[in-house]
Amino acid sequence: MKSKEPPLLMTPGPTYVPERILKALSRPLIHHREKEFLEMVQNCTERLKQVFKTKNDLFILTSSGTGAMEAAISNTISPGDKVLSVVNGVFSERLSNIATSFGATVRTLSVPHGQAVEPAKFKEVFQSSNYKLVTIVHNETYSAVKNPVAEIGKIVNETDSLLLTDAISSLGGDDIRTDEWGVDFCLAGSQKCLMLPPGLAFITVSEKAWGAIDKKQGGRFYFNLKKYKEKAPDNPWTTAINLVFGLDESLNMIFEEGLENRIKRHTQVAEHCRKEIKKLGFQLFATPESVASQTLTSVLASGRDVEKMRSIVKQKYNIQMAGGQKDLKGKIFRIGHMGAIGKKEVDLTIDAISKSLKEL
Amino acid sequence: MKSKEPPLLMTPGPTYVPERILKALSRPLIHHREKEFLEMVQNCTERLKQVFKTKNDLFILTSSGTGAMEAAISNTISPGDKVLSVVNGVFSERLSNIATSFGATVRTLSVPHGQAVEPAKFKEVFQSSNYKLVTIVHNETYSAVKNPVAEIGKIVNETDSLLLTDAISSLGGDDIRTDEWGVDFCLAGSQKCLMLPPGLAFITVSEKAWGAIDKKQGGRFYFNLKKYKEKAPDNPWTTAINLVFGLDESLNMIFEEGLENRIKRHTQVAEHCRKEIKKLGFQLFATPESVASQTLTSVLASGRDVEKMRSIVKQKYNIQMAGGQKDLKGKIFRIGHMGAIGKKEVDLTIDAISKSLKEL
Repeated sequence: MKSKEPPLLMTPGPTYVPERILKALSRPLIHHREKEFLEMVQNCTERLKQVFKTKNDLFILTSSGTGAMEAAISNTISPGDKVLSVVNGVFSERLSNIATSFGATVRTLSVPHGQAVEPAKFKEVFQSSNYKLVTIVHNETYSAVKNPVAEIGKIVNETDSLLLTDAISSLGGDDIRTDEWGVDFCLAGSQKCLMLPPGLAFITVSEKAWGAIDKKQGGRFYFNLKKYKEKAPDNPWTTAINLVFGLDESLNMIFEEGLENRIKRHTQVAEHCRKEIKKLGFQLFATPESVASQTLTSVLASGRDVEKMRSIVKQKYNIQMAGGQKDLKGKIFRIGHMGAIGKKEVDLTIDAISKSLKEL
Repeated sequence: MKSKEPPLLMTPGPTYVPERILKALSRPLIHHREKEFLEMVQNCTERLKQVFKTKNDLFILTSSGTGAMEAAISNTISPGDKVLSVVNGVFSERLSNIATSFGATVRTLSVPHGQAVEPAKFKEVFQSSNYKLVTIVHNETYSAVKNPVAEIGKIVNETDSLLLTDAISSLGGDDIRTDEWGVDFCLAGSQKCLMLPPGLAFITVSEKAWGAIDKKQGGRFYFNLKKYKEKAPDNPWTTAINLVFGLDESLNMIFEEGLENRIKRHTQVAEHCRKEIKKLGFQLFATPESVASQTLTSVLASGRDVEKMRSIVKQKYNIQMAGGQKDLKGKIFRIGHMGAIGKKEVDLTIDAISKSLKEL
């Protein structure tokens, strides 16, 4: 069935999955209610808590990252509740859309694409009403911009409001400090910096969040976090067993490298990518550069046909990057450098871009 | 990490996953929004429709089967809607619980465990009110009993009510006739007769069902079927790519064998299992035998310590069966014979049971 080598995925998820993890995926199944599997889940959960830097509860969901978004919101929000959503891209907008779907009255704090929210501006809007929940994306995959969650957390934590942070495209590659930042729900997905295929999502739940969840009636079942808590480490439904085999191996690799080493490596790879892409005459989309993501880089087209360039890079060099989504299509392109991706792969990509530009 | 051979799974899901499918799971990833992957999804969808015997829309969800249950219910039910749930086990009860969670007024038609619903009895209860939705499990995994969905369908189809049928543990091993039976939502999961690991669920949606879905406001997002329809064959969220690689291979195997041959094989294996288990002096739990499932067999303990017996079979012969759940714990045990499981595996299991009984 394989007509050619799979492309090198320099996309912001799914990203390159190392051979060791692919191999773990094809391990013959054991039953998900058996001791051996439950011990693996428990062990993965404890190590994931270290990656999230949290002592809060943590659950493994069989869904995409959007499922974890829904879990946080549908367990907290009743119709009429007020939600403040910081929106600076498609994924932060998704959080506001989910809140609306579950009946919340959503105030959107729109931030221009390519920029991060300013804490002072946030504080002003936040103080104008009593919000039950604040939603913010740590690393907005749409624009490759990092929001100052630590500073937002300080503001929210002084109140009864809950803070939901989507760290889907940064957890495992950036320094996520769930507890220090006061994040009540921190979310991640398997197919980003954790080097896994898609299909698992992760959610942390603070004591403060449980207070709201315990009062919530109906309106959710598959993502009902109370059921996950009652059953833990077992899952109330059937877990995607083989993806957990992969997760176990991913966590082995993360702790063999060392979490802090790994975060530092991502910082260095990101700096290297930005430096090299600028050498080709491109400008970064994220402004100022201090808000640029350390797991992916968004690059302005600057008058070049970047869709055609991406196509040549894919066809000729078998390297896949991402374009801009929605309003940004053709205006930017994005290079993912997550998980197992290092300087070597970034250099291959830069080289392919450089050669492809000459064909435009 | 592997201390010993994985057990032969004679459980009602997850079930034995053939080597070919395990291998497909470890295929390097391609991007889920790319043509190659979307063609695979389209191709899997068309072949799954043949397995469901439907011309209705069909969607692949990244979730356990419970997610497909929630998709059907949360897209249809608004608070106060009337639902009639046929309940003869844990899984049919789960459907009624989900309906309750989403605000339905649920009437439960309880059928003694081990028995199937009687169409005349159903008709009487069904006609007592106007139900928006009827829920029924085709193959109740809790008791290994098959409900007469064809006959229930005839009754429901004369009205505006919708029929939701969970075929999670029978699709691909029994003769599911979604369209002929008039099933508006037919559900299945990956880890049963389809020989895959858990993590994918499938749902068919009839034109009649779309009528109700289109009128439904809010209350769901991840499982919002309208979004799946708009995006098809792409998925609105990120699909569990590697599980779709496995699904593609599973469908290759199903159509190499031939769907009708495969269904017939399941019938023969089930008959063989029931005959052999009775030879050991056991009685079947399903009564009359004509309602016994053809994908798993439930067996009465008849005074024997079947939990101990199962434990010996597992420890000494490395064969894993299922016990009874909840009220049936210790009272029955269950032998799954799904997907790739044939007479040979059933014979190995019967032999292990026979030997283990002598040690009780």
